[in-house]
Amino acid sequence: MNREIIGKRIRRIRRELNTKKIDCLIVTKPANVTYTTGFMGDDSWAIITKRAVYLMTDSRYTEQAEQECIGCRIVARTNSMAEAVVRLRKKLKTVRSIGIEKSTSLAAFESLKKHVKLRLKAVSDIIETVRRTKDSSEIVAIKASISISAKALKQTVGYIKPGVTESELAGMLDFQIRKLGATNSFDTIVAFGPNASRPHHQPSKRKLKKRDTVLIDFGARYKGYCSDITRSFAAGRPTRFFEKVYEAVQQAQAAAIKTIKAGVEMVKVDAAARQAINSCDLPVYEHGTGHGFGLEIHEFPFLKAQSKGKLKAGDVITIEPGVYIPGKLGVRIEDDVLVTDTGCKILTNSCQHMLKLSN
Amino acid sequence: MNREIIGKRIRRIRRELNTKKIDCLIVTKPANVTYTTGFMGDDSWAIITKRAVYLMTDSRYTEQAEQECIGCRIVARTNSMAEAVVRLRKKLKTVRSIGIEKSTSLAAFESLKKHVKLRLKAVSDIIETVRRTKDSSEIVAIKASISISAKALKQTVGYIKPGVTESELAGMLDFQIRKLGATNSFDTIVAFGPNASRPHHQPSKRKLKKRDTVLIDFGARYKGYCSDITRSFAAGRPTRFFEKVYEAVQQAQAAAIKTIKAGVEMVKVDAAARQAINSCDLPVYEHGTGHGFGLEIHEFPFLKAQSKGKLKAGDVITIEPGVYIPGKLGVRIEDDVLVTDTGCKILTNSCQHMLKLSN
Repeated sequence: MNREIIGKRIRRIRRELNTKKIDCLIVTKPANVTYTTGFMGDDSWAIITKRAVYLMTDSRYTEQAEQECIGCRIVARTNSMAEAVVRLRKKLKTVRSIGIEKSTSLAAFESLKKHVKLRLKAVSDIIETVRRTKDSSEIVAIKASISISAKALKQTVGYIKPGVTESELAGMLDFQIRKLGATNSFDTIVAFGPNASRPHHQPSKRKLKKRDTVLIDFGARYKGYCSDITRSFAAGRPTRFFEKVYEAVQQAQAAAIKTIKAGVEMVKVDAAARQAINSCDLPVYEHGTGHGFGLEIHEFPFLKAQSKGKLKAGDVITIEPGVYIPGKLGVRIEDDVLVTDTGCKILTNSCQHMLKLSN
Repeated sequence: MNREIIGKRIRRIRRELNTKKIDCLIVTKPANVTYTTGFMGDDSWAIITKRAVYLMTDSRYTEQAEQECIGCRIVARTNSMAEAVVRLRKKLKTVRSIGIEKSTSLAAFESLKKHVKLRLKAVSDIIETVRRTKDSSEIVAIKASISISAKALKQTVGYIKPGVTESELAGMLDFQIRKLGATNSFDTIVAFGPNASRPHHQPSKRKLKKRDTVLIDFGARYKGYCSDITRSFAAGRPTRFFEKVYEAVQQAQAAAIKTIKAGVEMVKVDAAARQAINSCDLPVYEHGTGHGFGLEIHEFPFLKAQSKGKLKAGDVITIEPGVYIPGKLGVRIEDDVLVTDTGCKILTNSCQHMLKLSN
């Protein structure tokens, strides 16, 4: 990321603020603070006015802020965040209307309201809307994050042996991610056998059996950016039924990916995947077909049966259809794609689909 | 946890609500939802009235809720949380005043306000105040979490060798925690050499040198409950200066622990530690001397230079003085103690202080 890229982001945000008649936006969501300042620490807010961007932080983070921030002024607060905002506010004489992000807690909002005399307007999705379209530096970071995920999974394969627990396997995968200098995008899901029928299963003490199926849903976070990949496979020789289900999910994913292109209605992508599973006489999944990701693991756009709107060039999304049969099995295949004007680029090709187990 | 324990919690919360003239509390903070219902999943709220406790969840979590919840009614919402609350509200004819937790986001609050016709009163710290005093089931869980932390650290010792990176070492410790069936209370901090002078350092690619010092701040989370331990030591033969600093921090911690007893002013505990460091002519740390923990890693009470109030029997707190010299070193020693009527119990004795390294 450089000054030019961050300058472009701020200009796009200011245009949105202008339309909404807001002179000054208080940014409290950590991902939005990072996006607008480059700062990766905690407990800090950004303030965007027509003329400048401020990072409100404290002494724990000033050293880090000086290293990370681009094009913004660092304010080291000594009192509460509310008091620091008021102090800054006094300098900003031309500010008439202040917006604050809706993700802010009631507690922070009330404390601010007490101190700042102006009306605070709660606003949502201003920066999230801008963040939807990834710039070149973001695509580089996402690709790096995916590359780490792929390597980490490869290095975990030797561990997938009868007797290993879901929790251990998740831990080993996380360790490999760490070894590669990254952290997790979200809590790794490892589910053996019928446990995979719960999309949000938490890794348990269940041990892998010889012919169990395995579902792994994971992603590295590198330089702030996420990746999100799911692989499903059989530990031993797969059953016919598993093969049938796997093939159906694979077809559903391929059908969805085939429709992707800037300008395409998102419901069309969603419907393509569901239709493929339905036509195999398998139960259609209840979750969405995909979602954007970047600094957060779930971002705009969301691809669901009720989605409104079209795909745009620069969207980075997951495509993740699944089949879930309680008490029996769960199969989900999830890849990450970049939407382009002419179609899409699959970013997760480096992450092998059918793992070759060593046992 | 059983019905009796959770019944007692709810009775204590209802007494607080009664004092504040609130008939019905909307609980949105995950730790508070767990505390009042037993439920450990996400995206769910609890509603506490004079007669019942409700868990508002959705189809992803109903199976889990049925297994985990004690003494509460499970409501599987199909629409937005706000609409589900309104639907429930219609059944609760006697409810006049509704409280909602201040940690709720503005977005959720505004959506509720639009649907619910009654005035919503933003309230803070009602359940947090009750949670401060740990009950027997919580102390058992915290002890189990500490025991896992101690084992995990012991099993990581063999990895502390020149060449290992901070990030790898953190990953190995996290892996051992996972292997023992737990997760992390918070992001593990591993800091080598001068990196330890930043209390919130993030593990980096820095490699361990032969005579580096090491700081590890970590904790397992088991059955929802945290632990929080810091160990500092030298990888090789310690320098005289490190030994001097270590001894000072150890004395500071001992001095603080000596003062602990139900009824003692918290500032007295804080001052005891700072004084010990000051009297060694070392710089006094800027962070607090300790904090409560339980379902969250930071809970009431907070032991700082400006703390008001006294310790109570049933407080479970950290005591964690430190010395930080930028560019040179950082030493922090953190143990967990249970406050009793006659003094305190150190819960982290099983976690060795001076690690015996294998190299």
